[in-house]
Amino acid sequence: MLEKMGQLAKKAAYELSFEETTHINKALRDMAVQLLKRKDEILSANALDMAQAEEKGMSSALKDRLLITDKRLSGMAEGLRQVASLESPVGKGLDFYNRPNGLKIIKKSVPIGVIGVIYESRPNVTVDVFALCFKTQNAVILRGGSDCINSNKALCAIIRDCLLMNGMNEDYCQLIEDTSRSSASELMKLDKYVDLLIPRGGEGLIRTVVENSTIPVIETGTGNCHIYVDSTADKDMAVKIINNAKTQRIGVCNACESLVIHSSVLSSIFPAICEDLMKNGVEIRGDERACEAYPGLVQASEEDYGREYLDLIISVKTVDSLTEAVEHINKYNTGHSDAIITRNQKNAIYFMEHVDAACTYVNASTRFTDGFEFGFGAEIGISTQKLHARGPMGLSALTSYKYQILGNGQIRE
Amino acid sequence: MLEKMGQLAKKAAYELSFEETTHINKALRDMAVQLLKRKDEILSANALDMAQAEEKGMSSALKDRLLITDKRLSGMAEGLRQVASLESPVGKGLDFYNRPNGLKIIKKSVPIGVIGVIYESRPNVTVDVFALCFKTQNAVILRGGSDCINSNKALCAIIRDCLLMNGMNEDYCQLIEDTSRSSASELMKLDKYVDLLIPRGGEGLIRTVVENSTIPVIETGTGNCHIYVDSTADKDMAVKIINNAKTQRIGVCNACESLVIHSSVLSSIFPAICEDLMKNGVEIRGDERACEAYPGLVQASEEDYGREYLDLIISVKTVDSLTEAVEHINKYNTGHSDAIITRNQKNAIYFMEHVDAACTYVNASTRFTDGFEFGFGAEIGISTQKLHARGPMGLSALTSYKYQILGNGQIRE
Repeated sequence: MLEKMGQLAKKAAYELSFEETTHINKALRDMAVQLLKRKDEILSANALDMAQAEEKGMSSALKDRLLITDKRLSGMAEGLRQVASLESPVGKGLDFYNRPNGLKIIKKSVPIGVIGVIYESRPNVTVDVFALCFKTQNAVILRGGSDCINSNKALCAIIRDCLLMNGMNEDYCQLIEDTSRSSASELMKLDKYVDLLIPRGGEGLIRTVVENSTIPVIETGTGNCHIYVDSTADKDMAVKIINNAKTQRIGVCNACESLVIHSSVLSSIFPAICEDLMKNGVEIRGDERACEAYPGLVQASEEDYGREYLDLIISVKTVDSLTEAVEHINKYNTGHSDAIITRNQKNAIYFMEHVDAACTYVNASTRFTDGFEFGFGAEIGISTQKLHARGPMGLSALTSYKYQILGNGQIRE
Repeated sequence: MLEKMGQLAKKAAYELSFEETTHINKALRDMAVQLLKRKDEILSANALDMAQAEEKGMSSALKDRLLITDKRLSGMAEGLRQVASLESPVGKGLDFYNRPNGLKIIKKSVPIGVIGVIYESRPNVTVDVFALCFKTQNAVILRGGSDCINSNKALCAIIRDCLLMNGMNEDYCQLIEDTSRSSASELMKLDKYVDLLIPRGGEGLIRTVVENSTIPVIETGTGNCHIYVDSTADKDMAVKIINNAKTQRIGVCNACESLVIHSSVLSSIFPAICEDLMKNGVEIRGDERACEAYPGLVQASEEDYGREYLDLIISVKTVDSLTEAVEHINKYNTGHSDAIITRNQKNAIYFMEHVDAACTYVNASTRFTDGFEFGFGAEIGISTQKLHARGPMGLSALTSYKYQILGNGQIRE
């Protein structure tokens, strides 16, 4: 069933490689205008999704993710304009080699081709992901969740109309309207046409894609982020950073889920951290020594150290050395973001070098792991794998490269 | 069964990240010495493999791939010394961002971690692949074919002895001695410990790995390479380049398998190409117009255009325009290497830009797609996918990166 869609996407990707960036930017700005102009269409489609959610008895947190408000719609439009204003990473000379035999080799950035994206709720992903793929001249096949299918259809219809209005192939953006499990499974096997598959959603979705896809995947998302309080940590800084990383926004992948504390500061710094966290409603699950050091902690199980709570809960592990801290973190982290609070430069460097994560921080909150905070201008997601792209992915993560080799009759001897 | 090996590899990768490059280089040079010193061990192990191959009635071409001669052993030793002399791509500052809030972000190259390699015959792959992984501070799990298991065991024993002699963890290099299908299948699912899987071998092996691996894979190898003879091609150059690309070495992935010819040169240039190829024993399988243009051609079937012959056979497709040529190539190529022979600069640029391949050539043989020819000093393989690495992969293809972020108390508002 998706075979046809794959063929259309491949053809579209080829045509898209011919488009001028100025034209692409104009189309993106047109889409921003049309999204607001056709607001009623979008909101009434969204109302269908919301009614369905109500019927299903969905929690208010989940319903909130589905909801499109005026403000959120403006946000989507603003996102489109922002992507239009970014420099294109495509067609750049990345390297140049002049060979002794006279061959001139240019390494040049190119689009990846066809990108598939499988995601759950949040209809803004439809617009955001399309914009990033379009800007980098990749055709996209979107497979959103059933919960927001009506909103997604309305958004895609507007995008496709704008493509047509600009004399472009509307198949630069295709939405899989069948939201059954089997359509997702089929997409995962479409390696004949799709060059890259990005899952955006919870751990379960990502695991399913990794296990079943025959298309190269970029894993995004899960973050069991640690903060290690070193023996030389500044007390006020530790309290402030841990508070921020744990409580500023609890449902995000760069929130802190686990505290690692040097035993020498259990009685000096740790109580202040606990007092502050508890005041903010955080449940603290500690090992034996942590529980002894401060009243009111819950006993942590081994399982707690591997969990991404996404909630007002934090685990605590006590260690006797920096190396023990690093080994604990490498055992339980998800390769996302981990931080050390320290005044010792040698310890800072050791931590940054040897903790195996996309982002290793010294004296700052893990919450900064984000494409915008890094200054990339846009973000496709945060990669927790080591191939192709790691950490916050800007536009260039959606490019590949090719070698163009200029000769004048060279043959290999 | 491989669980234990995975754990050891992960531990080894962590230790390897602490090693100094000078120490790694010394160990590589020691291995070169030991390979030659312990020649008898290697040759008698290889004799076992050769006897087994004889018993199985293996073809002489296949037997030749297994054979270790004095010269080939010297080649392996030389390879080790060469890798020792290359600059390490690890620990390099790739980028630096100074953020308005004072955060300093360093993007730094790091090892990937644990690399699995599944390969077929040719025992030199054992030494080559280990050397490249070791130099880039990645622990490796090798799964060679059953045909050369005795040779592989002997080679790995020497490598591991040299690691120990240098006070290093011998598990930087592990060989799976069980060469059953199930050991390969198990390795493909070891994503808990293995960060990257590289299959090196025929199309069947690569397909199996792509379809079954839960570990990120880099596809290498298959090359259905095209040469397009444009209407403005230089006749002598076309004959010379096609001869070289087709006949200089037929069993390699960068050999030319398919000719695309502009109809306007069917009577002027094409006969000279055919004459030359036939003189060299090449069977030419052409479409109708090609068969009419020169006597003695075989009628090509549709299937011929998709085949990587690795033999003295070439297919020919006649086209009426450059765009038709590019579309034909994009339909049948494997994204490896394709060339245009032309004197028209505009056509050259169009071809280079729009043929979707790792390497697009103008007026040169496709045989140059090779890490050494590109000046990379070493080669892990030639990637035909677009993620992470494309085309000839030098040492840097075996690295990832991480962000190290230095703060002084920053929190996110």
